[in-house]
Amino acid sequence: MGAYSPIGSSPALTLGQYASMVPKDQPPVVGMIGGGQLSRMTAEAATALGIGFRVLAERPDDPAAQVVRDTRIGSHLDADAVLEFATGCDVITFDHEQVPAKILERLIERGISVRPGPSALLHAQDKAHMRAALTALGVPCPAWSTCSRVEEVASFGDEHGWPVVLKATRGGYDGKGVWVVSDIAGATRALATGQGRGTEWLVEEHIAFARELSAQVARSPQGQAVAYPVVQTRQMNGICAEVIAPAPSLSDEHAVRAQEMALRIAGDLGVVGMLAVELFDTGDELFVNELAMRPHNSGHWTIEGAVTSQFENHLRAVLDLPLGDPRARAPHAVMVNILGGDVDDLYSAYRHVFARDPELKVHLYGKAVRPGRKVGHVTLLGDDADDLLARGRHAADYFTGNIDE
Amino acid sequence: MGAYSPIGSSPALTLGQYASMVPKDQPPVVGMIGGGQLSRMTAEAATALGIGFRVLAERPDDPAAQVVRDTRIGSHLDADAVLEFATGCDVITFDHEQVPAKILERLIERGISVRPGPSALLHAQDKAHMRAALTALGVPCPAWSTCSRVEEVASFGDEHGWPVVLKATRGGYDGKGVWVVSDIAGATRALATGQGRGTEWLVEEHIAFARELSAQVARSPQGQAVAYPVVQTRQMNGICAEVIAPAPSLSDEHAVRAQEMALRIAGDLGVVGMLAVELFDTGDELFVNELAMRPHNSGHWTIEGAVTSQFENHLRAVLDLPLGDPRARAPHAVMVNILGGDVDDLYSAYRHVFARDPELKVHLYGKAVRPGRKVGHVTLLGDDADDLLARGRHAADYFTGNIDE
Repeated sequence: MGAYSPIGSSPALTLGQYASMVPKDQPPVVGMIGGGQLSRMTAEAATALGIGFRVLAERPDDPAAQVVRDTRIGSHLDADAVLEFATGCDVITFDHEQVPAKILERLIERGISVRPGPSALLHAQDKAHMRAALTALGVPCPAWSTCSRVEEVASFGDEHGWPVVLKATRGGYDGKGVWVVSDIAGATRALATGQGRGTEWLVEEHIAFARELSAQVARSPQGQAVAYPVVQTRQMNGICAEVIAPAPSLSDEHAVRAQEMALRIAGDLGVVGMLAVELFDTGDELFVNELAMRPHNSGHWTIEGAVTSQFENHLRAVLDLPLGDPRARAPHAVMVNILGGDVDDLYSAYRHVFARDPELKVHLYGKAVRPGRKVGHVTLLGDDADDLLARGRHAADYFTGNIDE
Repeated sequence: MGAYSPIGSSPALTLGQYASMVPKDQPPVVGMIGGGQLSRMTAEAATALGIGFRVLAERPDDPAAQVVRDTRIGSHLDADAVLEFATGCDVITFDHEQVPAKILERLIERGISVRPGPSALLHAQDKAHMRAALTALGVPCPAWSTCSRVEEVASFGDEHGWPVVLKATRGGYDGKGVWVVSDIAGATRALATGQGRGTEWLVEEHIAFARELSAQVARSPQGQAVAYPVVQTRQMNGICAEVIAPAPSLSDEHAVRAQEMALRIAGDLGVVGMLAVELFDTGDELFVNELAMRPHNSGHWTIEGAVTSQFENHLRAVLDLPLGDPRARAPHAVMVNILGGDVDDLYSAYRHVFARDPELKVHLYGKAVRPGRKVGHVTLLGDDADDLLARGRHAADYFTGNIDE
């Protein structure tokens, strides 16, 4: 028998065998679930790399859906929609951590790569699972316990001191699902918000931090990892408002400790792609607050400010390509989020902010303005962090409509 | 009569009057004619700025068409297709200079902004028109004349010396339509290539240049302009192969002269958007070779290497927004084009080039590989231009398939 097999003479090929026989001149397709600004900015990196990029968005006017050619509309909670979306993708990754593990397991059963995988992702989906894993690893965390009744909160508070932090273990983001409570009455009110919804709770020691930091790393399936400079973040109402890179006056010892912690967490939890470790810095010690397994608001400065952006390195990691240099391109970078205010027409601010500051970099996400909603960010690079911060705040305020000049 | 006018009581509104009355919370839409890599890279800048971006591409697999959500398919030579494309755009601009002036005039008649406008664009479409205009401005050019017969070429060569350069006045790009001829026989062969196609010719003095430079400026309709650092370009077979920014060892005097020349040309010809002025540098003098009124290959280094990329400043210019800072972010930047070779699967090179050089920035355009075709480029920033050039050449060669290690 020659190279040509008559029909029926050989067993049917599996999909994998077939795929390996097809000449593959096309670059791989990364499918990103979620159509938010993280997908939108990842799309820019995918365009530059010349890879295929597909987005599953809930609505046609989602930030990424407005710009990505290969956008599919559907819910990340709909197993069939996700499976249909993923078919033809070489790897699936995420704009958010809200895709149920069961759906991801189905993709894996069909032979589709999911990065990060569901067992890693669970640590970013379930705060109790995350705390248990980090505690087992010996990573410094606030004292914590799961709880369901106000009596448990009270006894935790009596042991570790008030106030305490109550967190819904699942579904929270941008400060939603997080309460700082000072007494039993506050705890009662917080727990009541989850009533009837089967919410599970975590109670945590309230760390009197001097500031918050974020340590970002990228990790590939084969285990290569790179650590970005550790940055300082400032939260307002639970939303990331400002990032200064690198974190001012952070000792080398603490910077290395934060990076090592993030690298270790990424390795031990099997993270693939970007990992952000949000940290409390008390001055003396660093405690892990949260994990995010995707590009993160604390890394937006890397678009202009690092040799390789977090979006490009996320793609390189999930494609198992060698990672790019995470180092900063300038002594300092500052990112300030643009929050929605009273002005619906963000574009109209360009005339002022661009004329005032020709170095300003602006990213608008195409979102409708709602008060307090993240609708964009500005970035500045330079030698003087205080100057950059003042200029970034002015520009962000101008977009919001808080105009003082 | 109150604010509300009953139907029929007032004259019909013009489209412009109507548009000014509609609440305008949506950002403007820039329409770019042509779906090549320049559109593709402009799309990345448009996404960041949060403006609308529409592309008219000839084929669904054109570089920009693969990635831009709002892609329309049609020919730039089809007046109806262009008009339909432009309707709903706030301003029309270009990936190439091949749209006939007649079609653009029709858009302007309909009240659609075209930037650069057809009378400016004509200088980039017709080399004889360009030479006449630059000569009238007193800008240094090679000696030149229009010609149609070989006798005219011969007498030009006898007067100015051989070899001479023969150029089709229209339709040439990347060295197509350009011949360096050393004698009457060569001139005869060159002119024969245009036979029966109504080609008009320009004959020019062959400048014995030491190197080629490019001076890029952005100019807005209200006349604001910024000048990028002057770069050195190296052409191979009429195609831009390498760019070094800034041009090594260029005297301040010559750098300023080149920038002033480009600013003056942009102003006097009424250019809006990016203008690239390609120059011959003889060591003593600078002569204008070509003009391009769009983002240009000699400015690809600005994506990572300048505070504001040429793509962003092109958009800001055509939208009449204040222009961004054109200064370099590093002492040196090097760009090397990736030309098609024997390897169809460009993606497969990533494993090698990224592992070898974590600082390497790669842009692949999504084009099918054909020998000699521009399919991407690499950029490196740093302190040592020779080192950057060696690394950039290695990476570009590896993509092409010229692998020596």
